[in-house]
Amino acid sequence: MKALVIGGAGFIGSSLCRRLLEMGNEVVCFDNFSLGNENNIKDLKSKKGFSVIKGDASVFEEIDKAFNDNKPDYVFHLAANSDIQASATNPNVEYANTYSTTFQILSCMRKHNVKKMFFSSTSAVYGDKRDVALDENTPNLAPISYYGAAKLGSEALISAFSYMNDLSVLVFRFPNVIGENLTHGVIFDFMHRLKDDGTQLRILGDGKQTKPYIYVQDLVDAIIKFMDVPQGVTLYNVGVEGATSVTKIADIICEEMGLTNVKYNYTGGEGGWKGDVPRFNYCLDKIHAAGWQAKYNSDEAVRMTVKKNLEA
Amino acid sequence: MKALVIGGAGFIGSSLCRRLLEMGNEVVCFDNFSLGNENNIKDLKSKKGFSVIKGDASVFEEIDKAFNDNKPDYVFHLAANSDIQASATNPNVEYANTYSTTFQILSCMRKHNVKKMFFSSTSAVYGDKRDVALDENTPNLAPISYYGAAKLGSEALISAFSYMNDLSVLVFRFPNVIGENLTHGVIFDFMHRLKDDGTQLRILGDGKQTKPYIYVQDLVDAIIKFMDVPQGVTLYNVGVEGATSVTKIADIICEEMGLTNVKYNYTGGEGGWKGDVPRFNYCLDKIHAAGWQAKYNSDEAVRMTVKKNLEA
Repeated sequence: MKALVIGGAGFIGSSLCRRLLEMGNEVVCFDNFSLGNENNIKDLKSKKGFSVIKGDASVFEEIDKAFNDNKPDYVFHLAANSDIQASATNPNVEYANTYSTTFQILSCMRKHNVKKMFFSSTSAVYGDKRDVALDENTPNLAPISYYGAAKLGSEALISAFSYMNDLSVLVFRFPNVIGENLTHGVIFDFMHRLKDDGTQLRILGDGKQTKPYIYVQDLVDAIIKFMDVPQGVTLYNVGVEGATSVTKIADIICEEMGLTNVKYNYTGGEGGWKGDVPRFNYCLDKIHAAGWQAKYNSDEAVRMTVKKNLEA
Repeated sequence: MKALVIGGAGFIGSSLCRRLLEMGNEVVCFDNFSLGNENNIKDLKSKKGFSVIKGDASVFEEIDKAFNDNKPDYVFHLAANSDIQASATNPNVEYANTYSTTFQILSCMRKHNVKKMFFSSTSAVYGDKRDVALDENTPNLAPISYYGAAKLGSEALISAFSYMNDLSVLVFRFPNVIGENLTHGVIFDFMHRLKDDGTQLRILGDGKQTKPYIYVQDLVDAIIKFMDVPQGVTLYNVGVEGATSVTKIADIICEEMGLTNVKYNYTGGEGGWKGDVPRFNYCLDKIHAAGWQAKYNSDEAVRMTVKKNLEA
């Protein structure tokens, strides 16, 4: 199979490229190298069947050329802004990098008659419904971030393009994904700041924001397991058992870095920043019933991520 | 109040402009005059407080200038492609005219600190769920047309912009709207074709596609009644009692045009065209409970529309 992995040099995309190559597939990695970077894929460049295209998937001509030159069998669409906190002050980032990429990729699939797709959606499509167990049938999706809005809009596009062009699309809605090669996010920030000053740590909010963190290899396992879907859209919530508070993350990092007596300075308030969903209750019954379960729970994923990033 | 009506020269927009002027408001009509036209607003041009801007709301600079020059209190966003059948062969029309207009308008509201908005959404956001009574809490919205996808994406944007910028937005999801000055759609098509040849009529599908048609003045009544909403998004299904089959529409038109023995030639099949939802069951309990009901049922709306368009 020839796979086109869009956002393939990114944090999740690079792990997916690696796995697809190990399985014996041809892999074309398409990335604009804004959040993705060369370092993530440097071990893959010498591998047989791997190629890299630098391009912007929000520009039809650029992604169209990649389809035209490569004739992929399967499109893995992981191109998006992934730094939600950053786009909170500039919604144009989500319009271009998260929504428009999806539109142009689907337009190319329509034009080039490519039928199979994986799409990385997010728990942020649900919005702030902290007292509801969020499953795939939860009504009234009401994103509170521009990121969540662009992902929900992308899901709507997938629904229509899928119906109109007989596509088979796997959509995963997942929360925070962590692992080696982090480029941003709370673990990344805390580690960097504690390297600079191991005596104190500024923490946004009250530290009680509690979210499930999934280890990147667990997510890749799930993508591979479910990638062959029937015609139409197949949707799963994907996540882990448990959740980890921001304070607990700080504790794990300090422990792994061998720091003691670090003073935590909380800025106060519930959410870390506007558009952040401070906690949610994610129902995974559907994917568990389908025979998949994450190997690592949230606290384990955090600890492994800290270790891997300390080694790097 | 100063109202900015985007898509104000269109079929619905022009009726809304007229009503807002009658109520004593200042009205700025912004339109790209693609589906909207001068004829719809020619009676308004001499009215005090009415002005017209020709521009494209999908281009930030053009709509930004309108906000900057006019400092509106309330934005009525009716700019969209409204010819769903046409965009079925060209999804770019929906990306530009339906989704991108919404993104740029919301970006302008954010920039210029305008807090109040009406948005015209559609029953097409639900997708093809013909055996379910569709209410505002129906889960798994799965549009099957590019139009429905762009509208659902727009609703997602409104959710996030509303939360992030403390907007107050009224969203109506409504089915087919008809009345004077139709520019396309089944009634428009049938009347034109029967004027050319009063002996026979080609009908897409089996003629049993049955939909509710709302009279445009009823819709405008509802917009005015509910336009003051609290902070956040207030959503209503808006529609009428009953529904009218395509064959019944043909019958009403023939009757009103005085044609007898017209031979109907059905192309066969369930839907008129791919992306069309052949019938649906629309639940109006929420808006009825809030004290609004359409004056005209679906058959009455069709008959009045035929009469008005014959007079014109």
